[in-house]
Amino acid sequence: MQEHKIGVVAGVGPWAGLDLMRKLLQQWPAACDQAYPTIVSISQPSKIADRTAFLLGENACNPGYALAAQVLELTRMGATVVGIPCNTAHAPAIFDIIRSELATAGTPIKLLHMLEELAHHLRTEMPTVERVGLLATMGTYQSSVYETVLHSAELTVITPSQQQQAAIHDAIYNPQDGIKACGSGNARTLAVLTAVSRQLRRAGAEALILGCTELPLAITTPTFEQLPVVDPTSILAQALLREVAVDLNRDVCIVSADTRPNAM
Amino acid sequence: MQEHKIGVVAGVGPWAGLDLMRKLLQQWPAACDQAYPTIVSISQPSKIADRTAFLLGENACNPGYALAAQVLELTRMGATVVGIPCNTAHAPAIFDIIRSELATAGTPIKLLHMLEELAHHLRTEMPTVERVGLLATMGTYQSSVYETVLHSAELTVITPSQQQQAAIHDAIYNPQDGIKACGSGNARTLAVLTAVSRQLRRAGAEALILGCTELPLAITTPTFEQLPVVDPTSILAQALLREVAVDLNRDVCIVSADTRPNAM
Repeated sequence: MQEHKIGVVAGVGPWAGLDLMRKLLQQWPAACDQAYPTIVSISQPSKIADRTAFLLGENACNPGYALAAQVLELTRMGATVVGIPCNTAHAPAIFDIIRSELATAGTPIKLLHMLEELAHHLRTEMPTVERVGLLATMGTYQSSVYETVLHSAELTVITPSQQQQAAIHDAIYNPQDGIKACGSGNARTLAVLTAVSRQLRRAGAEALILGCTELPLAITTPTFEQLPVVDPTSILAQALLREVAVDLNRDVCIVSADTRPNAM
Repeated sequence: MQEHKIGVVAGVGPWAGLDLMRKLLQQWPAACDQAYPTIVSISQPSKIADRTAFLLGENACNPGYALAAQVLELTRMGATVVGIPCNTAHAPAIFDIIRSELATAGTPIKLLHMLEELAHHLRTEMPTVERVGLLATMGTYQSSVYETVLHSAELTVITPSQQQQAAIHDAIYNPQDGIKACGSGNARTLAVLTAVSRQLRRAGAEALILGCTELPLAITTPTFEQLPVVDPTSILAQALLREVAVDLNRDVCIVSADTRPNAM
């Protein structure tokens, strides 16, 4: 039987890639090293243009091509299912390019769609929620990708004002103390996230989507400003593990018989 | 110019591999995604027999062969320098096999030796230290690999008693609450590490080597039981970054020109 391997495009951004890999281990309790799933990853952020800059027209390079190249490289490493822990990369202008590049290459690979997994999670795990607040990058915000995906799941998305949205984007991207630069939040960026989340709750949000994979590095509690937190990275980790679960033995510490004999 | 890429054999154990990747990002401050270094990793622990079990004669499979195969796979992914975040894998009975397999393959790859990097670090950064206490797995302990490497750097290694050593090994390996199973320490395992570290200090240790890459997941402070902590994972991260630093631009958020043009 073919071994299933999880592939992670880990550089969008690098801290988000690490967060996904951490959540893969956390969600797969194992008694010994050998019982953990196989994960191959590529973090090569220098090759991937900023997703928001492209969506806003500030950069002509569609990062979808570089993302597809890395998915294909993961396939050559044996990955059978791949996740891209970047919300903005799931905007159709980028994700459609990735899908078409993979189709052209004709490689049999299952690329999960993080936002579709999230919509499914909301409908099955939080069925009473109807209105969700969205914290995201400017690219995700302007692309309306969450609205598109969640509308088909009969959910309403509540977004911040333009001014609040700019503050959220800065909390993620600020080169001095933004989450991409630090790998975590600080007092200033958390204050921004707090103020905007409070506004979203007042506007009727019943849950809070951390719609940029850097946000779970700053908001690490299950609720935030009294709203249950919905973490796409965690949901993507669950979905990736679901795909490989079929051939993983969770209880026994086994070693493949194809290692060569003792050479001592 | 060839791009330098860091390769990580990330499954020995999986939490230790993640810890190394985290320390690579932490030690490379970057203002934006694109300024982080390239890291490729394979975490395939099911293929790698337990290192200690092999060294103690409980398992006939020398994990050196599987480790070498993963290093070679990382080379095929473009890695130019590779680290293996597992102290026990550096015991000569295992590491010599890795080196000979790589030599046979004839692949130009720089495989760092974590313990030799640590010896260099001790001599250059902590020149007044003469006696170091060692916390490690039973395999590392019985192989005397630390004594061999550090003796050539004119350092004395102080090890726990057999009974204390067994307790340390259990804190790492216990399938219920050991660090390999949990990815962190708990009250019980930390109490064991505390008691043994205190004994090492009383026996004359001037610094404490976390000689198993799971230990920095439990001991996260710069000093522990009044001893400065020496973390091989952190030193390996520094060494890997030193190797790739030559061609990385740390200040400018660049994107390679080989991405295809905007297809919107």
